[in-house]
Amino acid sequence: MEFNAKVETMNVGVEFQNINVLLKDGEKKNLKLDQDQLKRLELGKTYHFTVETYTHNEKEQLKVVDFVGIFEHIKDPILLKLELASFYEYAPIDMKVLKDSIQGFLDQLENETIKKITKGVYQEYENSFYMYPAAVRFHHAYIGGLAYHTKTMIDIAMRFKEIYPYLNKDLLIAGILLHDICKVDELNGFEGGEYTLEGQLVGHLVLGAMKIKEMARKLDLVDKEEVLMLTHILLSHHGLPNFGAAKKPMTPEAILIWYIDTIDSKFTVLGEELAKTDAGDFTQSIPVLDKSRVYKHKF
Amino acid sequence: MEFNAKVETMNVGVEFQNINVLLKDGEKKNLKLDQDQLKRLELGKTYHFTVETYTHNEKEQLKVVDFVGIFEHIKDPILLKLELASFYEYAPIDMKVLKDSIQGFLDQLENETIKKITKGVYQEYENSFYMYPAAVRFHHAYIGGLAYHTKTMIDIAMRFKEIYPYLNKDLLIAGILLHDICKVDELNGFEGGEYTLEGQLVGHLVLGAMKIKEMARKLDLVDKEEVLMLTHILLSHHGLPNFGAAKKPMTPEAILIWYIDTIDSKFTVLGEELAKTDAGDFTQSIPVLDKSRVYKHKF
Amino acid sequence: MEFNAKVETMNVGVEFQNINVLLKDGEKKNLKLDQDQLKRLELGKTYHFTVETYTHNEKEQLKVVDFVGIFEHIKDPILLKLELASFYEYAPIDMKVLKDSIQGFLDQLENETIKKITKGVYQEYENSFYMYPAAVRFHHAYIGGLAYHTKTMIDIAMRFKEIYPYLNKDLLIAGILLHDICKVDELNGFEGGEYTLEGQLVGHLVLGAMKIKEMARKLDLVDKEEVLMLTHILLSHHGLPNFGAAKKPMTPEAILIWYIDTIDSKFTVLGEELAKTDAGDFTQSIPVLDKSRVYKHKF
Amino acid sequence: MEFNAKVETMNVGVEFQNINVLLKDGEKKNLKLDQDQLKRLELGKTYHFTVETYTHNEKEQLKVVDFVGIFEHIKDPILLKLELASFYEYAPIDMKVLKDSIQGFLDQLENETIKKITKGVYQEYENSFYMYPAAVRFHHAYIGGLAYHTKTMIDIAMRFKEIYPYLNKDLLIAGILLHDICKVDELNGFEGGEYTLEGQLVGHLVLGAMKIKEMARKLDLVDKEEVLMLTHILLSHHGLPNFGAAKKPMTPEAILIWYIDTIDSKFTVLGEELAKTDAGDFTQSIPVLDKSRVYKHKF
Amino acid sequence: MEFNAKVETMNVGVEFQNINVLLKDGEKKNLKLDQDQLKRLELGKTYHFTVETYTHNEKEQLKVVDFVGIFEHIKDPILLKLELASFYEYAPIDMKVLKDSIQGFLDQLENETIKKITKGVYQEYENSFYMYPAAVRFHHAYIGGLAYHTKTMIDIAMRFKEIYPYLNKDLLIAGILLHDICKVDELNGFEGGEYTLEGQLVGHLVLGAMKIKEMARKLDLVDKEEVLMLTHILLSHHGLPNFGAAKKPMTPEAILIWYIDTIDSKFTVLGEELAKTDAGDFTQSIPVLDKSRVYKHKF
Amino acid sequence: MEFNAKVETMNVGVEFQNINVLLKDGEKKNLKLDQDQLKRLELGKTYHFTVETYTHNEKEQLKVVDFVGIFEHIKDPILLKLELASFYEYAPIDMKVLKDSIQGFLDQLENETIKKITKGVYQEYENSFYMYPAAVRFHHAYIGGLAYHTKTMIDIAMRFKEIYPYLNKDLLIAGILLHDICKVDELNGFEGGEYTLEGQLVGHLVLGAMKIKEMARKLDLVDKEEVLMLTHILLSHHGLPNFGAAKKPMTPEAILIWYIDTIDSKFTVLGEELAKTDAGDFTQSIPVLDKSRVYKHKF
Repeated sequence: MEFNAKVETMNVGVEFQNINVLLKDGEKKNLKLDQDQLKRLELGKTYHFTVETYTHNEKEQLKVVDFVGIFEHIKDPILLKLELASFYEYAPIDMKVLKDSIQGFLDQLENETIKKITKGVYQEYENSFYMYPAAVRFHHAYIGGLAYHTKTMIDIAMRFKEIYPYLNKDLLIAGILLHDICKVDELNGFEGGEYTLEGQLVGHLVLGAMKIKEMARKLDLVDKEEVLMLTHILLSHHGLPNFGAAKKPMTPEAILIWYIDTIDSKFTVLGEELAKTDAGDFTQSIPVLDKSRVYKHKF
Repeated sequence: MEFNAKVETMNVGVEFQNINVLLKDGEKKNLKLDQDQLKRLELGKTYHFTVETYTHNEKEQLKVVDFVGIFEHIKDPILLKLELASFYEYAPIDMKVLKDSIQGFLDQLENETIKKITKGVYQEYENSFYMYPAAVRFHHAYIGGLAYHTKTMIDIAMRFKEIYPYLNKDLLIAGILLHDICKVDELNGFEGGEYTLEGQLVGHLVLGAMKIKEMARKLDLVDKEEVLMLTHILLSHHGLPNFGAAKKPMTPEAILIWYIDTIDSKFTVLGEELAKTDAGDFTQSIPVLDKSRVYKHKF
Repeated sequence: MEFNAKVETMNVGVEFQNINVLLKDGEKKNLKLDQDQLKRLELGKTYHFTVETYTHNEKEQLKVVDFVGIFEHIKDPILLKLELASFYEYAPIDMKVLKDSIQGFLDQLENETIKKITKGVYQEYENSFYMYPAAVRFHHAYIGGLAYHTKTMIDIAMRFKEIYPYLNKDLLIAGILLHDICKVDELNGFEGGEYTLEGQLVGHLVLGAMKIKEMARKLDLVDKEEVLMLTHILLSHHGLPNFGAAKKPMTPEAILIWYIDTIDSKFTVLGEELAKTDAGDFTQSIPVLDKSRVYKHKF
Repeated sequence: MEFNAKVETMNVGVEFQNINVLLKDGEKKNLKLDQDQLKRLELGKTYHFTVETYTHNEKEQLKVVDFVGIFEHIKDPILLKLELASFYEYAPIDMKVLKDSIQGFLDQLENETIKKITKGVYQEYENSFYMYPAAVRFHHAYIGGLAYHTKTMIDIAMRFKEIYPYLNKDLLIAGILLHDICKVDELNGFEGGEYTLEGQLVGHLVLGAMKIKEMARKLDLVDKEEVLMLTHILLSHHGLPNFGAAKKPMTPEAILIWYIDTIDSKFTVLGEELAKTDAGDFTQSIPVLDKSRVYKHKF
Repeated sequence: MEFNAKVETMNVGVEFQNINVLLKDGEKKNLKLDQDQLKRLELGKTYHFTVETYTHNEKEQLKVVDFVGIFEHIKDPILLKLELASFYEYAPIDMKVLKDSIQGFLDQLENETIKKITKGVYQEYENSFYMYPAAVRFHHAYIGGLAYHTKTMIDIAMRFKEIYPYLNKDLLIAGILLHDICKVDELNGFEGGEYTLEGQLVGHLVLGAMKIKEMARKLDLVDKEEVLMLTHILLSHHGLPNFGAAKKPMTPEAILIWYIDTIDSKFTVLGEELAKTDAGDFTQSIPVLDKSRVYKHKF
Repeated sequence: MEFNAKVETMNVGVEFQNINVLLKDGEKKNLKLDQDQLKRLELGKTYHFTVETYTHNEKEQLKVVDFVGIFEHIKDPILLKLELASFYEYAPIDMKVLKDSIQGFLDQLENETIKKITKGVYQEYENSFYMYPAAVRFHHAYIGGLAYHTKTMIDIAMRFKEIYPYLNKDLLIAGILLHDICKVDELNGFEGGEYTLEGQLVGHLVLGAMKIKEMARKLDLVDKEEVLMLTHILLSHHGLPNFGAAKKPMTPEAILIWYIDTIDSKFTVLGEELAKTDAGDFTQSIPVLDKSRVYKHKF
């Protein structure tokens, strides 16, 4: 028998171990397993289990034969959502719409250098990109948050391109698509939300810049000015300058992406908070809005 | 003989006074006038002159009979531009397009309270609104800058409304339209750019808030929540909070207007600076961009 | 039977409602009332009750016939104190001394414009002015705190006028008298201490400035420089400048009032804290003094 | 022949040296002198000269026999002012009034410890105290500025004592009198205004604290709490705290003296600037007022 | 019978008082005493007790005859450590090594003025110097912390002298040795860690500067530039400048001592924290390191 | 004829071009050359010229046959210094001593991963490393400044390793050696001092981190924790944290390198400034020392 289930509790007895798991239809099962198997499992994560039944004290029992992480079993985020949506919070957007939208933007890229590098990096992260949150806390902290935040930012950027035609469309699309992609390396899983060692000591900005450099070298595009522009967008997208350790944004697209990143992280949260607030009241204090409480009018 | 002309120099002799003026076709004239007339003129401003000719030392001379400020002579900004465009820098947009655009936004207002107040204030400032700059220096510092900045901000806001549907369209349009309208009271003329005493000691934010209150009282709408929302947008649109003296933005529309105001003041200037810069170079240091120099890429 | 009493508890049964109230002599009563009556009452507030007696289960009961807020029943703060002094904390000053002192300052005003506007606004707030606190927490947070703080500030200002004769006495008196008067609109009651919506989104500085403008319009004094000076004092009395949203003090009287406001809010609290501290000890940490603990010497 | 004169120019020839000096009645003289004498003189300072006449080339010449600094010749500041008032700017107050006022405050001291220490230190600096400025630039930068600033501060403090009776009058008088007295050691002369090495590396706050400690030791009062209170006032009178290097004010009198020092340094300058400004204009930018320009009203 | 013991609990009965004390071998005793004796004792401190035995209810009892503070009984820190090491935490260094090291540095002083002053002050504090902590919390907060921190700082300074030979060795040794020595006056005991009144209102920087001045006066060295240099090091060793209240470091040695003080307070704590941390983990948040958590690598 | 010479002036006539060059012995020559040759030369740089003589108007003339940049002609910095020392300012240290010292540190590396990566990167930059300055202005702004600053920093680090034995010697040596090595890419030449585009938009910190990653990939060491430690040192060595764009130092070695970098940039400059200052005077204002002027004592 095979099924997908999320580990809810772990029980260690003197002679054997078992876990309680939750299936997507709400059913709970108790699974026996050995010590080595137990060590490789993590609470709160979801696995594809292969089990066999046996009878003990006249009751039917289930014993784990094998298991793999759900993400190794099903790579496609659309299929995966069918399995996981009842276990974890998802971004409030249809996964197919999200994916089509992102890939639609990729197809709009015209500059060959930008297109090759962006597609190259995207393909390396493709499935994870639709699973990771955009931040551990405070904004877009749900499965798919990274892709959802990215899509909305490009939507906004395309509108600014209409207002300020001097902006470069390819740099906007590629810069936004890549700007947070190394959150996948910065965090230790899409379900959880702890920083990896690399995430703490290097961070997704520089990890992303390194990834672009590496892809450029692989594609023999390392001396192209486009590579430098993308690298700069990655390094500067948090905007506030430092005394040498980082770079403040110094190209039109880098400056705009900094603003759009800020705005979407605030206004998506604000919309979520207002939805929980009665007209005539203030929202809770919102961390990304400088802890402000925002008033919802009555008319 | 009547004509419009800009005062270029003033000459005071022992027995008579005269001025040199510039006409829009580039012609220059010397006009005699008396002391009282001279005192009422300002260098750099444009007037509608009525003159008569007489002969002195066998040369035909021109003597000022009467004059009024050009803005008293021609109120309509579209007609006025025909007279002044060769004397002063204008916003890079057709005046009719600009006016139609602003009035189109006004026509979209649906909430009756907001509509009445906004139209009421707009009509009071109507002609000046298309003449004043948006700032003395640094951004949109040309004739029509105020209306041009306002129009672009509403253009941006309408796009954000598509992205974040919970925003109130009427508050965005009205809030932006009114947010800087008291620059007309803050500055002492559309040609110049000095602050009035009221501008220095009160400022256009509070002057605007007072104007809304006054209009609300006139229209008997003073207790409407809409009035409070508009007042708050006016008071908070510079965004950075103080210890009591002002208010930080605390409604969704007030927060967004703060961002859009910031962005348009930066990106319009940036576009103007990039237009003067060669590909592969940095722009000059740009004051509104924290004195940054911005790089213009080559590909 | 009629009496004044403060609502201490509310009890809702299935069939009837009743409240326990406290009278100024310490007596407690239980009053029956109906649902509609109950909804209009607030815990912690004081009312003038009209009740009638009836007998139930051989015990005499009291039933509410009618009630009004105490402040509607007795407007005069001196009389009101006789009723409320045992319920709420009052400023440590005799109410008649306070009122005579404030009105004495008003009588000293000589400039006609300043005098008319100040008296006009004062009369509008007259009774509340003696009831409200000067702040919700931290300093003068008791009934009468607003008037007591105002009186002490004028006392100090009159002494500075002796030291620096160039200061304008009328602007000092009027500016101080009006500077916090819209706290009455900013807070939702003299007993409590929550901000009104208007208080949060506009604030007492701008509310005060608007009130002066309105009074000036009513008295046809709107173009007087005195009005601008008073408006500026109101807007700037918190002193610390912002990037455009408010004004830093730019007249001698505005600067001095900022200092005196700061000093009295600190030194009145300090006196109250020292009174609770033994010689040779430090006071508690005092919030308005940057959380300092202050030493009380022994000699 | 003997007279007092200020050195205006120095001339060095191959065979002899001479100087041009200015007398208080405006007369100028040329004085011959030898190299050693010349070295001991400073430009801009005033000396008591003893000269003799001789004849050279049939013209009467003056030769310096001896000289001493004017302050060694006349110690009394009242007499000194008669000699120097035409050479240097003086505080705008009669010297006798100033001295009587300061000594009157000294006579009001009641606490024996405070009285002995304050008089002890005062006597050590007595004459210089009336000659030095209160600051090199920005406020009270004229002869007598130190005493004038001190007197005004005590005047203000005595008024605050009326408002807040818990303040200790002796600590206020003594603390203010001593707070800047080591400016005399911090600066290298009353006429000039350069810092001494001690002034730069130690400063008048700590120099003053050391002086109090020394006087206390001499008078065998070193363990008195009064000494600690005065020391603390000296160390903290600049108010803004540091991370350990200094002390923020932590007694009522220390806090008040900080405020009064700030206020008098601003408002005395403000009065001087307003006196130079027309009604309806702004003053120049005033450094001690955060570079503000202050408006002088017209009514 | 005589012994040293630390007071652990105090018990007050109606008719008599007794305390429980701890001896260095872990033995506990109950001691009877009278009210006056009890008042002079402090919990947590160690005393030399003289007791006599008597019998009560057939049980042998101990009664306190006399006691003195342990530091009055044994002055020598090396001997003292034998008694106290089991009661209090000590710096992780042998007391004799520490003392020899400090005295070795003293012996290296060559400049006579610096040598006399430094030895003079050191002798005044000699025994306490080896007992006090360097700070109440956060770094070197154990017995001997002051001397241990001082020794390490001189060790570092001697190495910098090799790198930058222009530094003055005598000023480095003397400046470091004296820089924190008045912590002994700032704190109220080596065991505890509360600030004295003098510590709070004056602080160890100025207390140290005063001590140097006093010693210089005693030795008739008050005008030596060396005294000024040492005074400046003491006043500036916390480095961050203030607006007048203190001095920022302005000599090479003062600047270096500031850096070394900062570094040793951080790196000694860091070593102690790393010792408690597994390889591959982060330390706890470390207050003196700006609350950072520091990673301990695995290779 | 061949020789090395620095271009001092360029002269363009109608028919031919010529330049004036300076030889190391001070001799000056005029060289004829064609337009294409002229375009490839830069003022202030040094070249190896091959010239031929010819006669024109009976005077012997020199004509350029060919030239290469001096750094292409002579790679070895020791030999190069013999040619360039009279043209440019050099670090005040013997080039051979400097090189031996750096290579001696490299030889002390024990950890194989660190050793391979550090040597790999070093060899790529070997010759430039000894030619570039450490900064454009303010400190070590001379030829060899980069290597001299690096050597001194390692000297200091080795001494701190003695004081705090828990520090990792290999990380200190390698981290310091690599920390500024990409200044070579950040600046456009050792003689000049302008930033490259890459220098401005990416900066030497991230360029260095990328270089380490690249070398690790080449050597198949990319997953070693040592690589992460070195990367972190590079990224954090400017110390002050930002809101996400960079990393503050979070390992013991990274924190120490930040301090040592700061100290050596200050104290090397300070030594150079003190050497120009008389005893008893203050140095000039020193930019890297927060614009302080530092006092040089007299004893």
